[in-house]
Amino acid sequence: MAEVKLHGAWFSPFYQRVKWTLKLKGIPYEYIEEDLSNKTPQLLQYNTIHKKIPVLVHGGKPICESMNIVQYIDEIWPHNSLLPDDPYERSVARFWVTFAEDKVVSIFWKTLRTSGEEQEKAFEESLEMLRIVEEQCLGEKKFLGGDNINIVDIALGSVAYWLGIIAEISEFKLFEKFPLLNAWIKNFEEVPVIKKNLAARDEIIAFIKGRKALRSS
Amino acid sequence: MAEVKLHGAWFSPFYQRVKWTLKLKGIPYEYIEEDLSNKTPQLLQYNTIHKKIPVLVHGGKPICESMNIVQYIDEIWPHNSLLPDDPYERSVARFWVTFAEDKVVSIFWKTLRTSGEEQEKAFEESLEMLRIVEEQCLGEKKFLGGDNINIVDIALGSVAYWLGIIAEISEFKLFEKFPLLNAWIKNFEEVPVIKKNLAARDEIIAFIKGRKALRSS
Repeated sequence: MAEVKLHGAWFSPFYQRVKWTLKLKGIPYEYIEEDLSNKTPQLLQYNTIHKKIPVLVHGGKPICESMNIVQYIDEIWPHNSLLPDDPYERSVARFWVTFAEDKVVSIFWKTLRTSGEEQEKAFEESLEMLRIVEEQCLGEKKFLGGDNINIVDIALGSVAYWLGIIAEISEFKLFEKFPLLNAWIKNFEEVPVIKKNLAARDEIIAFIKGRKALRSS
Repeated sequence: MAEVKLHGAWFSPFYQRVKWTLKLKGIPYEYIEEDLSNKTPQLLQYNTIHKKIPVLVHGGKPICESMNIVQYIDEIWPHNSLLPDDPYERSVARFWVTFAEDKVVSIFWKTLRTSGEEQEKAFEESLEMLRIVEEQCLGEKKFLGGDNINIVDIALGSVAYWLGIIAEISEFKLFEKFPLLNAWIKNFEEVPVIKKNLAARDEIIAFIKGRKALRSS
C-alpha cells in the first residue's frame, strides 16, 4: 500500500491546493481520480461527514478538507515550509487563509453556478473582496507569502485561477481592475511547480461550458 | 501599555473563546468592552477588514478572528496546550474547528436572527449537524479533546452555550435529543475556568429578549 494516497478530481481547485503542496514538498503519492457522480467506496468511508474530495490518506489514515490537509502536510514534512516561522506572521497568514475560505471561495461558487445578470452581480460583489486582497494583503510583494509562495498563495491561487477563467468565459474584466492581483497571478502561475501542475486552461473552459450546457438543457 | 489587550463584547461567544483561552493559560490582560453600535477608533484601526470583535493586541500588534487568536495564544504560550501533540490528532482537531466555524456557527446566527416557524425550521435543520458531533466527534470522551478540554471544546462550547439558551427561550428541545452532547455541555460548563468565565445566563436571556423586542417594535 502506498504511504500517501490522494483522492481528487482533476478540475477541483481544492484538490489542486493539495496536489501543489505535495509537489512543492516532493512527496511521492498515489493518485485516485474520483468520478464525483459515482464516488469510490473508499472516499465515502474516508470522508463520512462531507463525502468530498480532496482526501489525503497517510499510512491508512484519512485527512479531509483541503486547507487542513495542506497544514498537515506542512507539519509532517516541514521542508519548504508554507507557514512563516514567526508566530505573529503565522497568525496573519491564517487570517488570510480564513478570508480566502470564507469570502473568495463563496465568490467562486456564486460565479460558477450563475450566468447572465445574476453572474454579473456576483462578479460586481466580488470586487470589494478582491480590492481588500489587492490593497491589504499584496502590497509590494511578489507573492502573498513574500519572496516565495506560502500557504496564502496556495489557498487563494487555486481559486483565483478558476475565477480568472470563469470571468474570461463571461467576458467580465475581473482582475484587470487590480494591477497587483493581476501581477501576482502571473507570478504565481510562473512558479515552476505550479505551472507544471495547473489543470489545463482549455480543459477547464470545456468543463465549465459542458456544465453550463447540461444545466440549460 | 499593557502587553496584552483584548477588545470584546461581554455577550459574544466569539469573544468568550478568547477570554477562556487567556484564562486557561493564566495570561493577564487589559479588557476593553466595545459598544458594537459605537466601536472604538482603536478597534476599527486594528481590524480594518472585518471591523469586528474580538481583537487581541499583543505588544501593539492586532490579531483578528477568534479561532485564529486562540491558535496564536496557544503558540505564544504553549503551556496547557489546546492542540494535540500528534500531527494526525491535530488535523482531526482542526477538522472539527472548521466544522464548528462553517456549520455550527451558521446555526447559531440563523436561530438568533429568526423567530416562530422560521426559527423552528432552523433548529430542525441543525439536528443533523448536532447528530454528527454527537456520533462522530464525542463518542465516549468526557470532552471533545479527550480527558481535558482542547481547541474543539473552545470552538464548539462557546456556540453550544448560546444555542442552548436560544433553544430554552424558544422552548425547543435541542440538546435533549443528544445525550452525549448534553453530558458534554454539562462537563464543559463545570470546568472551573469556564464556569467562572461564562457570560451570565440571565443576562444573555435578557439580551436576547431585548434584541427580539427591538426587532419587532
